[in-house]
Amino acid sequence: MLDDTAQRLNERFLRQIPMTRHMALEITSWDGRTLRMDAPLSPNINDKGTGFAGSLATLATFSCWALATLLAERAVGVDCEAAVFESDIRYLAPIRGDFYVLVAVPERDAVHAFDKALKKKGRARLTLSASIFEQGDEKVRYRGRYAVRMRNI
Amino acid sequence: MLDDTAQRLNERFLRQIPMTRHMALEITSWDGRTLRMDAPLSPNINDKGTGFAGSLATLATFSCWALATLLAERAVGVDCEAAVFESDIRYLAPIRGDFYVLVAVPERDAVHAFDKALKKKGRARLTLSASIFEQGDEKVRYRGRYAVRMRNI
Repeated sequence: MLDDTAQRLNERFLRQIPMTRHMALEITSWDGRTLRMDAPLSPNINDKGTGFAGSLATLATFSCWALATLLAERAVGVDCEAAVFESDIRYLAPIRGDFYVLVAVPERDAVHAFDKALKKKGRARLTLSASIFEQGDEKVRYRGRYAVRMRNI
Repeated sequence: MLDDTAQRLNERFLRQIPMTRHMALEITSWDGRTLRMDAPLSPNINDKGTGFAGSLATLATFSCWALATLLAERAVGVDCEAAVFESDIRYLAPIRGDFYVLVAVPERDAVHAFDKALKKKGRARLTLSASIFEQGDEKVRYRGRYAVRMRNI
């Protein structure tokens, strides 16, 4: 399930960010509450034949960036720029096949405060959490803080 | 300045880990105290024309992995496997050109404890810190914890 906004974001980042092409990243689902991004193991493999930590960190960081962008553009209806400024990650177990990340929209109060700040000041911050799964098993847990601003501000 | 061990590690990871080739990563210096790894901006650029956070997280995570591997193999003289299990990162400022990471060998007591555990049990853990620079200015600060084991253990 993918609306036009998410599809446009897919096309935009694949064109603008070479690493997302090499990793074969793709938003595969976005229902307004949870974003899912998939990645195949093959281009993201390490010396041990499991998921490369760099690719996992990138997927987690980038999927939350995508959600921050979608939430911001939904709130103000114009293009927004998002950037991560800090994060932490835990690698719970090795990944031995294709994998995907799920990022949930934060609770209503946090989204409300984010929308309000963005509309008022043109800038806002948001903390997002993501987990990477392989066939339903959680393998990586991530939290990142993002700064977002309306473009031309 | 690059000894044979570091040169072999460069060749090994470029062959085994596709993402390191796409990022054009390279250990450019290793004097037994500090490891330096370089990356060009061009393949690691984002939609804003600055360093892609995923590439920066990968460089930091991977350079510490390389140092953990070098320290382990120096301690026991056989091939070792290292894996990150948790990390945190702060992005201090955008990067607008080629960049590099410096990872320092931890203080003597930490290295001594690491060497001793690895020799005794074939496994050990190590916390490493890295900073990414652009022309001498620190742009990213990272800390990661690594689990290392002798191969065939």
